[in-house]
Amino acid sequence: MQTELSNRLGIEHAVFGFTPFPAVAAAISRAGGFGVLGAVRYTAPDDLKRDLDWIEAHVDGMPYGLDVVMPARKVEGVTEADVEAMIPEGHRQFVVDTLAKYGVPELAEGEVSGWRITGWMEQVARNQLDVAFDYPIRLLANALGSPPADVVTRAHEHDVLVAALAGSARHAVKHAEAGLDIVVAQGYEAGGHTGEIASMVLTPDVVDAVDPLPVLAAGGIGSGQQVAAALALGAQGVWLGSVWLTVTEAELPSPKLIEKLLAADSGATVRSRALTGKPARQLRTEWTDAWDDPAGPGTLPMPLQGLLVADAVSRIQKYEVDPLLGTPVGQIVGRMNSERSVQAVFDDLTRGFEQAVDRINRIAGRSGQ
Amino acid sequence: MQTELSNRLGIEHAVFGFTPFPAVAAAISRAGGFGVLGAVRYTAPDDLKRDLDWIEAHVDGMPYGLDVVMPARKVEGVTEADVEAMIPEGHRQFVVDTLAKYGVPELAEGEVSGWRITGWMEQVARNQLDVAFDYPIRLLANALGSPPADVVTRAHEHDVLVAALAGSARHAVKHAEAGLDIVVAQGYEAGGHTGEIASMVLTPDVVDAVDPLPVLAAGGIGSGQQVAAALALGAQGVWLGSVWLTVTEAELPSPKLIEKLLAADSGATVRSRALTGKPARQLRTEWTDAWDDPAGPGTLPMPLQGLLVADAVSRIQKYEVDPLLGTPVGQIVGRMNSERSVQAVFDDLTRGFEQAVDRINRIAGRSGQ
Repeated sequence: MQTELSNRLGIEHAVFGFTPFPAVAAAISRAGGFGVLGAVRYTAPDDLKRDLDWIEAHVDGMPYGLDVVMPARKVEGVTEADVEAMIPEGHRQFVVDTLAKYGVPELAEGEVSGWRITGWMEQVARNQLDVAFDYPIRLLANALGSPPADVVTRAHEHDVLVAALAGSARHAVKHAEAGLDIVVAQGYEAGGHTGEIASMVLTPDVVDAVDPLPVLAAGGIGSGQQVAAALALGAQGVWLGSVWLTVTEAELPSPKLIEKLLAADSGATVRSRALTGKPARQLRTEWTDAWDDPAGPGTLPMPLQGLLVADAVSRIQKYEVDPLLGTPVGQIVGRMNSERSVQAVFDDLTRGFEQAVDRINRIAGRSGQ
Repeated sequence: MQTELSNRLGIEHAVFGFTPFPAVAAAISRAGGFGVLGAVRYTAPDDLKRDLDWIEAHVDGMPYGLDVVMPARKVEGVTEADVEAMIPEGHRQFVVDTLAKYGVPELAEGEVSGWRITGWMEQVARNQLDVAFDYPIRLLANALGSPPADVVTRAHEHDVLVAALAGSARHAVKHAEAGLDIVVAQGYEAGGHTGEIASMVLTPDVVDAVDPLPVLAAGGIGSGQQVAAALALGAQGVWLGSVWLTVTEAELPSPKLIEKLLAADSGATVRSRALTGKPARQLRTEWTDAWDDPAGPGTLPMPLQGLLVADAVSRIQKYEVDPLLGTPVGQIVGRMNSERSVQAVFDDLTRGFEQAVDRINRIAGRSGQ
């Protein structure tokens, strides 16, 4: 599974793995892929420094990258408190009532919510970058549009490739115009924030729109057959996120959540604004149903919704309140049916890819080859 | 593009084309694919007989099939008038008001709506089959679940393969249990009735669920690269519908609608209940927006919605009322950018397929082959 892009990065397989867990990122790079650490949860720069140190010590010299959530437009002088003040009381009460209905306990006194994500605030993301550029990262990906121009310049000065996610050809063209090096075409079936165009259509749309920039296909990919399909569509690699949630190296805090992921079929997700205020694919739960119910107050725009539900999501996860317990994940969750090591995932991917290539050659009448 | 299934049917390319137009169906089969005539609009058996005669005379002896819309469960003694009587007055008034708002003229006195589709009524579909089994059709496809058991038996007695559409692995298993021969996995991105699981995930789901039954991939396929992707995912062929709407052999009555289809990008569709009462992908218009608007009365269940809007849709199409003018079509509409002949579509499909196979072999390190 080698493309121009994988050769440029010096990796064996054109498989990029996005993960919030340093151990998973390092294992992906060691297995011949390209691990990308999600930074959005690192509020304190020292925590990010600690985990990048860990990766450096465990990646066996293989390349890796960082994923941040950085808005292209700067919002001057807005603090978290300002945003909190914009949340209507009725919405706060809906959270209180819904949690009470399911008997969800409070966090302990002084306990900080792990879901109080502030990495989307520009200054927090910039602090992350100040740390990251001290490490030999090879890729900086942004989940929220093109990064600001000075960040792109700074990355290029550090010989770091810049990528961004796009849900349409139009968004992808904006990334190309902003001087980015790679576009991640994020299909409808992907976990997390997605648009409505499915990978089968989106991948070639984006490939054609930004040619000759390399495109990574994201959304619906968890087997070698799906890798082959994405590469047949013109991608120079694949970007996998969901599949790493249930690897043995992952550190999901809730065993019950892992069970839910392993049991879920491909129809078990929903694209909902419940988590962040923008449509994001996640396990469908009674929590997402409550937010998507026309009888409820509905969701608030980003970033208000994320702040509104941060403590609630932490409480649901900590106390493993089954009917409400969810996580961002793509439709590929239907193929995540056993806990495997990262290396075993790669073994399955490469085996499935070779089988798909054999199959397609037979169909093309090149079976002797 | 040859698979076990295409060899069994004696066709050159494992490309199945669904179309309401006899000229397109015949051209698909002549080009080496397998044309499937959509029968739902044939209320009068003689009309179907006339068009099957035409196909017989123009298909050069190549095989073809028929697509019907037949419910598995029989609803005894329900007439169209009974169904009409179930439509609330408020919904009728909403149709009147919306059409008036856009100044849509009435049909002429005595003019019959082309969209008054009754092919979904079991007796109408059975009358169609009485006609069709007098012709050497090789495939009978059903768009609405498994056909009734006696129809499957009758088809098999005529050496006709039976296929049905499925939007999930669960539905596909029901088809296998009903003794069907082929499952069409209809992804989220497809035109017409679809579920929520995208082709990248649905195709292998269904392939695994009904193995060893052959699966056709539908949804998001209009290029040879997409054919290669679908076959890499395990399909034994592809099922294309949208792409034939703008071929030169098609007989869409509205030039403005053809212009709209050629101009639309892949984000121009919506999955809406506006046309039939079940979610069906179609061009997004101010008509679909009106039905999907929470401030409106909302849609009625199938088959009420279809009867409610039949005349309206005919009037919108006849008078080409631009903001309301739409049609069922998939996200692949973004690649339908010029009027081509059916043969030109096949030339593009085979060329793109070969390019994709070359590409995937290079990536797999089999470039010398």
